[in-house]
Amino acid sequence: MSKLVVVGTVAFDAIETPFGKTDKILGGAATFIGLSASHFNTEIGLVSVVGGDFPQEYLDMLTSRGMNIDGIEVVKEGKTFFWSGKYHNDMNTRDTLVTELNVLADFNPVVPESFRDAEVVMLGNLHPAVQLGVMEQTPAAKLIVLDTMNFWMDSALDLLHQVIAKVDVITINDEEARQLSGEYSLVAAARKIHAMGPKYVVIKKGEHGALLFHEEHMFFAPALPLEKVFDPTGAGDTFAGGFAGFLAASGDYSFENMKRAIIYGSNFASFAVEKFGTERMQTITNEQIDARLEQFKALTKFEINN
Amino acid sequence: MSKLVVVGTVAFDAIETPFGKTDKILGGAATFIGLSASHFNTEIGLVSVVGGDFPQEYLDMLTSRGMNIDGIEVVKEGKTFFWSGKYHNDMNTRDTLVTELNVLADFNPVVPESFRDAEVVMLGNLHPAVQLGVMEQTPAAKLIVLDTMNFWMDSALDLLHQVIAKVDVITINDEEARQLSGEYSLVAAARKIHAMGPKYVVIKKGEHGALLFHEEHMFFAPALPLEKVFDPTGAGDTFAGGFAGFLAASGDYSFENMKRAIIYGSNFASFAVEKFGTERMQTITNEQIDARLEQFKALTKFEINN
Repeated sequence: MSKLVVVGTVAFDAIETPFGKTDKILGGAATFIGLSASHFNTEIGLVSVVGGDFPQEYLDMLTSRGMNIDGIEVVKEGKTFFWSGKYHNDMNTRDTLVTELNVLADFNPVVPESFRDAEVVMLGNLHPAVQLGVMEQTPAAKLIVLDTMNFWMDSALDLLHQVIAKVDVITINDEEARQLSGEYSLVAAARKIHAMGPKYVVIKKGEHGALLFHEEHMFFAPALPLEKVFDPTGAGDTFAGGFAGFLAASGDYSFENMKRAIIYGSNFASFAVEKFGTERMQTITNEQIDARLEQFKALTKFEINN
Repeated sequence: MSKLVVVGTVAFDAIETPFGKTDKILGGAATFIGLSASHFNTEIGLVSVVGGDFPQEYLDMLTSRGMNIDGIEVVKEGKTFFWSGKYHNDMNTRDTLVTELNVLADFNPVVPESFRDAEVVMLGNLHPAVQLGVMEQTPAAKLIVLDTMNFWMDSALDLLHQVIAKVDVITINDEEARQLSGEYSLVAAARKIHAMGPKYVVIKKGEHGALLFHEEHMFFAPALPLEKVFDPTGAGDTFAGGFAGFLAASGDYSFENMKRAIIYGSNFASFAVEKFGTERMQTITNEQIDARLEQFKALTKFEINN
C-alpha cells in the first residue's frame, strides 16, 4: 500500500455561523485532510503537535479511521492550537476572533521512521518552515502537494517561495492566487505560479468550484450547489485531503487522474460544510459518496455533436 | 424556418474600462441578443425603438446579419437611449455614469404582423410593461424567455411578477435571484422563483458560469476562464441570445437541449467580452465558435467509473 504523509494543524476550533455556535470542537487542517484521505486505500501518517489538553478520544477517533498518529507530538505541559471565528451572513467571509498558537509556536515536525519513504506528501496549511522540514524528511516523495494561505504570504513570503519552488502541486484560493501572482485573471495568475515551480496549479473558488491548470490545459470542477451551507470551516482542507488521498491510492499522478482527484475533493468538501467542524466527515458512508459522485457527473454533462 | 421575436434596447453605450474608453458606440440588449442569435437558423424579428440620431449603418449591419428590423420604430424627432458606465479594476462591478431614456420613455412596442406567429420570444431587459405588451402580440409562442434585472425589481416589482408568471424560462444573475427570492442559497432561490411561474430558471454568475434549474434537476455550465476580459458589457445579453437562438432553431425545448443552449450562450459570451461593445460579436466565425466549443467540452470532462 502507498504511504501518504500529512502535515498540518490538529486543533480546537470555536465557530459561530448564522445557524449556531460551538464550544471548542475538534478542528485543524491535518484533521480534515486525514478524515477526507482516509476514504482511500493508502496508509496515512499524520505529523502535527497538540497540548496536554487534547482529549485522548480525538486521537482514538483518528486511529480508529486507520490513521497513524506516531507523528503527532503531545506536549504535556502545553496547550493545543486554538482558532475561533465568526462567519458573516453570506458564509463566504469570516472574522477571526481568536488565534492562540500555543504548542504550534515551537513546533519542530518529526516524520516517523516508517513514513520517511512515503510516495505522497500533503503539506497542509502551516508555517513554510515546518513544511520545508517535512520535505527534508521525505526524500522519496514522488508527489508533493502544498496548501497554503495569504497569512504566510504576508509574514513569511521568502520561505513560502522556497516551498513553492519544490512542490508538484499547489492548492490555493482565488484571492490568494491573485495576491501571490499580482495578476487578476486566474489564467494569468496560474501561469505565473506555474513558473514559480509547481507543474500543477489548483485554484479553489469555494462555492464557485475549482480550477486545475497544467501547461496549456485547464480543468474546471464545480462545487455542488447546496440548499444550505452550515459551516464552511475545513472545506478547503477536506478538498485537499480527498485530492491527495485519491492520488496516493491510485499512484497515477497524470493530468487525467488529477481531474478525478479534484472531483473527489469537491465531493468530500460538499459534505464537510453540512455540519459543524468534522461532524459530517465522521459519518459519511461510501454509498453517500457514490450517490453524490453521480450528482457531480450529471451536473456538468452535456452532449453536442458538431 | 422558426421565428424568434427579440425585444430589448437598441442603444448607444459609452464605456470605460481599465483598458480604455469609447465614445458613443452601438449597444443595447436587443442588439447583443440579435447578434448572438443570428448564428442559428431562425428568423429574427427585433422589436425596439431608436431616435433620429441613430446611424443608418447600424441598422444596415443588423439587416445584413439576417435580422428583420421592421419592429424597430424610428422616432425622427427623438434621441436614442444612451447608457454610459465605468468598470472597476476587478471588471465585476461598475458605476453607471449616465442613463438617458430618451425615446425609450414612451416606447409602445409593435410586433410586425409577420412575426406575430413566432414560436420563441426573447424578452430582453426592458420595462416589464413593454415585455407584457410583446407577449400579448405573440399568442402562438411555445417558449418565452425573460431576461430582467434588479432595476425593475426596485421600480416595477408588481408588473415584473406578472411577466414572471407568464414565461417559461427566466435568466437572471445571482444577486438578482437572491433579491427576487429573499434566499441566499441559489438552490433555494431557484426553487422560489420556479414557484413564481417559470419552469426553467437560469442563474447567471458571470465569470463563475451559469446554473440551470428544472424541477429537481440542475445543470452547471462554466464560463471559459479567460486571460483577459476587455469589456463585460452585453455579455449577459449575448448569453441570452445564444440560448434563445439555439432553442428557436432546434425547436426542442427539453431540459437536455437547454443544456446545449446554455453552453452555446456561454460560448458566445466568452467572445463578447474580448473587445468593446459589439465589435467581437460582429467578427466571430463558425470555425472560432466550433473551436471554443471543443474547449468548453474539455473544460469539465472527466471519467470516473465506480
